[in-house]
Amino acid sequence: MYYIGIDLGGTNIAAGIVDENGKIIKKDSVPTKHERGAEAVCLDMAKLAEKLIADSGIDRAQFKAIGVGIPGLANFETGFVYKCANLYWENVEMSKIMHTVTDLPIYLENDATVAGLAESVAGISKGYDNSIFLTLGTGVGGGIVIGGKIYTGNNHIRSEIGHMTFDVHGEECPCGNRGCWERYASATALINMGKKAVEEDPESLILKKAGSVDNITARDVIDSAREGDKTACKVYDQYIYYLAMGIVSLIHLFDPEIIAIGGGVSGAGEFLLEPLRKEVYKHVFCADIGYAKIELATLGNDAGIIGAAMLGK
Amino acid sequence: MYYIGIDLGGTNIAAGIVDENGKIIKKDSVPTKHERGAEAVCLDMAKLAEKLIADSGIDRAQFKAIGVGIPGLANFETGFVYKCANLYWENVEMSKIMHTVTDLPIYLENDATVAGLAESVAGISKGYDNSIFLTLGTGVGGGIVIGGKIYTGNNHIRSEIGHMTFDVHGEECPCGNRGCWERYASATALINMGKKAVEEDPESLILKKAGSVDNITARDVIDSAREGDKTACKVYDQYIYYLAMGIVSLIHLFDPEIIAIGGGVSGAGEFLLEPLRKEVYKHVFCADIGYAKIELATLGNDAGIIGAAMLGK
Repeated sequence: MYYIGIDLGGTNIAAGIVDENGKIIKKDSVPTKHERGAEAVCLDMAKLAEKLIADSGIDRAQFKAIGVGIPGLANFETGFVYKCANLYWENVEMSKIMHTVTDLPIYLENDATVAGLAESVAGISKGYDNSIFLTLGTGVGGGIVIGGKIYTGNNHIRSEIGHMTFDVHGEECPCGNRGCWERYASATALINMGKKAVEEDPESLILKKAGSVDNITARDVIDSAREGDKTACKVYDQYIYYLAMGIVSLIHLFDPEIIAIGGGVSGAGEFLLEPLRKEVYKHVFCADIGYAKIELATLGNDAGIIGAAMLGK
Repeated sequence: MYYIGIDLGGTNIAAGIVDENGKIIKKDSVPTKHERGAEAVCLDMAKLAEKLIADSGIDRAQFKAIGVGIPGLANFETGFVYKCANLYWENVEMSKIMHTVTDLPIYLENDATVAGLAESVAGISKGYDNSIFLTLGTGVGGGIVIGGKIYTGNNHIRSEIGHMTFDVHGEECPCGNRGCWERYASATALINMGKKAVEEDPESLILKKAGSVDNITARDVIDSAREGDKTACKVYDQYIYYLAMGIVSLIHLFDPEIIAIGGGVSGAGEFLLEPLRKEVYKHVFCADIGYAKIELATLGNDAGIIGAAMLGK
């Protein structure tokens, strides 16, 4: 059997035919152009899926379902999307609209959750029953897999890992709460920490790399730390500590076999993993008994398509 | 079939015969006297179990297993206890020692986890697939039930809910980390907050009730707040906020159907639940979609026996 996976992003709708093992057979994409409104986007997703099937030369009966990873909150049983902030969607009958074009069953899930499923089916977390996927980007997204399946909870909240309270007296988060972990562990957090640091030390390599404070990227901070810039090292160490302590919390709560790290910051590779593991294992309860492996996610951008496709399996 | 449940405490070993529905048929107990060493205590547990069976008049073949809730950390597959701090146990072959007295299969689990299982089998969380039990006492213990079963993780860490990082720059915790949730949400935390408050306001009713700063109990703070003492109300509101924000984190992560609250502080009843629910629902993501019920645990001290027994089911 084959499955269609769709990764609905702010810029592009990426879709692919995926086999039962999570291997992408064929990919295609169209621009999202969300300014056209939700209906046009939903129709385009369904058309792209049908186009992929038609172009593939594979018997249509071999296709089991369409899965969609959405950057938002939905009722995953009914296919009703409550909100996708990036797309300006509110209360969209996604599956219903798509079904005017395609008769295949449609599944949807949060995009970070979907990426976690992908890693557990075909990526670094393959072969582990319990895994957590973290994506360190604008925010911190997460996917929790328990017993080989997405852990879903009951009210469609779906592993909002970035919104654990991490610093109860800390920074305000756009979600309305204070001190959410993503204010400390996202790429955005690293950037903000870098900006603050160069205000105190304008000589820092961070600023030389970025050109201006406004242009500072996570990569500027990471590369400057890698080159030994003192201020950058201090910022990066602090960031690693924040990231580690949130992961320690997740280990204390879920005790998974593996934690897979993706998203922009994971581009730092071993320069991230090595100090991160050290810090986590220093602080985790009973490190002598056992603890989760910490590894880089391996599927990159394909995780969205693969995971979405696997929703229908 | 029947099951023996044993609640291994610092003062008493409480045991009971429990039926398949989690109903206690008969109870018995002996003093723990841990100063005798671990072997004597393990033998007493096994003997107490066998005595209960012999005294019950029920055919021995009707007993399926013995379960033990331990206040510590163990390898739950092998019955090897790594550590029970309260009992001064380290590296105890609990099941092996008990098997010199009884041939019934022996299961063990962390005591808070066991209490969570009990609530989900025969208490307030009965009928819910996904539930979390919190016990607010000396620390904050927890039991996570997913799909009707204890969520176990992989390395015997077992839902150390009290040790989520909650205030990353905050108070040191005896576990070695900083700002663990139990430093803010346990009965101990409420007591410490009360002590601090009466130093600033020695006129507070809290001090009148307690007699001296050293004697302040969680109940003194709660009762003083109930009677409208300003300082006590301030302390209690702050405590409720801390408790609520940790629960919000748990909802964001697990999205359970119900959170059951037990332990000393839960004695405050509706005076705890009402403001707690208000605070949680104010801060939880998407309160308009749905969220966990928050209720009092109903089994009290029996939860230990019932949950331990249900380990063998």
